[in-house]
Amino acid sequence: TSARVRAVPPTVFSRMSALAASTGAVNLGQGFPDTDGPSSVIEQAGVALRTGHNQYAPGPGTTDLRRAIAAHQWAHYGITLDPDTEVVVTTGATEGIAAALLGLVDPGDEVVALEPFYDSYAAMTAFAGGVLKGVTLRAPDFRLDPAALEAAVTKRTKLLLINTPHNPTGTVLGREELEAIARVAVAHDLVVVTDEVYEHLVYDDHEHVPLATLPGMAERTLTLSSVGKSFSLTGWKVGWATGPAELVSAVLGAKQWLSFTSGAPLQPAVAWALEHERTWPASLARDLQARRDLLCDGLDALGLPVRRPEGTYFAVTDISALGWDDGLSFCLALPERAGVVAIPLQGFYADGSSAGRQLVRWAFCKEPAVLEEGLRRLGAAD
Amino acid sequence: TSARVRAVPPTVFSRMSALAASTGAVNLGQGFPDTDGPSSVIEQAGVALRTGHNQYAPGPGTTDLRRAIAAHQWAHYGITLDPDTEVVVTTGATEGIAAALLGLVDPGDEVVALEPFYDSYAAMTAFAGGVLKGVTLRAPDFRLDPAALEAAVTKRTKLLLINTPHNPTGTVLGREELEAIARVAVAHDLVVVTDEVYEHLVYDDHEHVPLATLPGMAERTLTLSSVGKSFSLTGWKVGWATGPAELVSAVLGAKQWLSFTSGAPLQPAVAWALEHERTWPASLARDLQARRDLLCDGLDALGLPVRRPEGTYFAVTDISALGWDDGLSFCLALPERAGVVAIPLQGFYADGSSAGRQLVRWAFCKEPAVLEEGLRRLGAAD
Ligand SMILES: CSCCC(=O)C(=O)O
Ligand SMILES: CSCCC(=O)C(=O)O
Repeated sequence: TSARVRAVPPTVFSRMSALAASTGAVNLGQGFPDTDGPSSVIEQAGVALRTGHNQYAPGPGTTDLRRAIAAHQWAHYGITLDPDTEVVVTTGATEGIAAALLGLVDPGDEVVALEPFYDSYAAMTAFAGGVLKGVTLRAPDFRLDPAALEAAVTKRTKLLLINTPHNPTGTVLGREELEAIARVAVAHDLVVVTDEVYEHLVYDDHEHVPLATLPGMAERTLTLSSVGKSFSLTGWKVGWATGPAELVSAVLGAKQWLSFTSGAPLQPAVAWALEHERTWPASLARDLQARRDLLCDGLDALGLPVRRPEGTYFAVTDISALGWDDGLSFCLALPERAGVVAIPLQGFYADGSSAGRQLVRWAFCKEPAVLEEGLRRLGAAD
Repeated sequence: TSARVRAVPPTVFSRMSALAASTGAVNLGQGFPDTDGPSSVIEQAGVALRTGHNQYAPGPGTTDLRRAIAAHQWAHYGITLDPDTEVVVTTGATEGIAAALLGLVDPGDEVVALEPFYDSYAAMTAFAGGVLKGVTLRAPDFRLDPAALEAAVTKRTKLLLINTPHNPTGTVLGREELEAIARVAVAHDLVVVTDEVYEHLVYDDHEHVPLATLPGMAERTLTLSSVGKSFSLTGWKVGWATGPAELVSAVLGAKQWLSFTSGAPLQPAVAWALEHERTWPASLARDLQARRDLLCDGLDALGLPVRRPEGTYFAVTDISALGWDDGLSFCLALPERAGVVAIPLQGFYADGSSAGRQLVRWAFCKEPAVLEEGLRRLGAAD
């Protein structure tokens, strides 16, 4: 095994989902819904299978899907994109992240990311030979401190790797936070890679504002998203990267060697979803908001202080209220103790940081009955 | 764009397929069939879509698919594998190659591959910081010279990256060649990564022998294959890596960050194909053998000496017989001159080598009428 693989612990999501499967626990860990997306979209994939979409899709993605992605960015955000040079289809946003980092980061380059960071950011920054610098969103409110962001940038900073809505904290960056990011990016002439897979899953009166729409940002921002979260089809692994041709071509330059292309029979259905199921993600968000409240009210009632998230699938709690001080031990014991799986946040902080030690993430992208059963089990265990 | 992406020319397959699409040429370039695989398998993917296989598959692949892959290796080759630790599903063999190289090669390690080499081998060896050393299969018969292989191995050699049946030459390595590889691997205690995606597509009385079946090889061989070529479903991009747990876990260690997982609704159908359409690949091979003969006879008749391949989708010609001395120029001119696309082999040789300059690859995984039309156009152009 290479040193690069040995240096990075395995993804916590696989470990915790395997634990859920082997113990029969209620899985509030890895973020995937237990109800599939629109049947019309699934039906379109069946049509694609039966009508000859079974050979390699073009490396950049099918023309129809690239056009649909461009149209989506226009309809929702007023962003104009050339589907031929400013859009590339990836194997989910995970491959978008991998290809962006391999395509843009040289050894020694620094990558500034919001901490806690999604685990593949750290792994792929390391694979690219880069150095990850975290800007901590501090508990309990998980807001961005513009001064901390400014302080993290050095002469070696190559790019800012942002995600909003933010996994795992559920923070949706507001205007002022976004403007602070744009100010730093423009002042230091940085590339911004922004993972916006939860773009449609925002609650209450919060609004998702793509970083690419801020002044001075369109020309330096690579935006990543996917069908998985917006349409409850996480297993399809069809994602995309959009932005200036130079950044998109860097993604393609790496991606062509990672998978070459993928999901030929799924790409036409994703194009169809973006064109014909435009309001579906917003109705999903309304459902999820109610499930968020169900989960958060329940955790609160169990004496677990919870930050009510503004977006995403996830709510974060501080387990010190229950007398635990180590989230990893808590989460490893939980399936036996309570028959529930959750995700410890410790691994999403820089090595040696203790900021995430007592934080645990719970997914609410599940049927209400499943959330209720999870809460009941947690209550019975205490 | 990172130096690693800038250092590698873009994949010739995308370039030539785009040229075919824009000129309306007959595409005998990129290897994909124009007829889809078994309708029963396609139907099973439709069933999976409708029965809730739309969320993340497990990172290593579904249990059913891993079991079906292990059963395939046992039924065809007598290889025994533990599906839980010795099999991992990848986004086609391309991701298997990427993850194997990132998972096994450290900077400065040497990788010995058969030249001409499939283009992703060079790109991903470079991404991993390795140094690719070619052992040339010399035209016109493209056989392996055991002395050249032995000479290519140094103290820095980490692994042998083999492919048999060999793309682009069509060579199927014979017993003696395989034994020479095994001898070198065992003597120098090397890992062998072997890309066997054309395992079922061998012609005449040639036999595919997996490297893993040779004495001393099971414990050091990582075998890559996929559904794409064997079942004419190249767009599904479901592949696998099999071998000792340590090598498989190195692949998983890299792959978890490249795509995490992919093709959830396709994995059950691939499992079904391996279990229920066992004889389909052999009947495809019979069809392809006739198409190989159609294409090779036609190229011969046009005055293009062709090596009749023992396996794969491809036949290689030497265009110097037509008075051309540069295959890239030949292939770039061909769509205009003749309305046909083929692949120049130059890019599959080490930088500076002229061994592939006059070699051009033609795909015969196409309907006979398409091959005939391609030949007609070539004849009319001369
Ligand atoms: C790619 S697996 C993890 C799914 C997810 O985005 C999460 O649980 O955070
Ligand atoms: C992955 S694109 C190339 C398909 C193929 O294997 C080939 O044409 O050699």
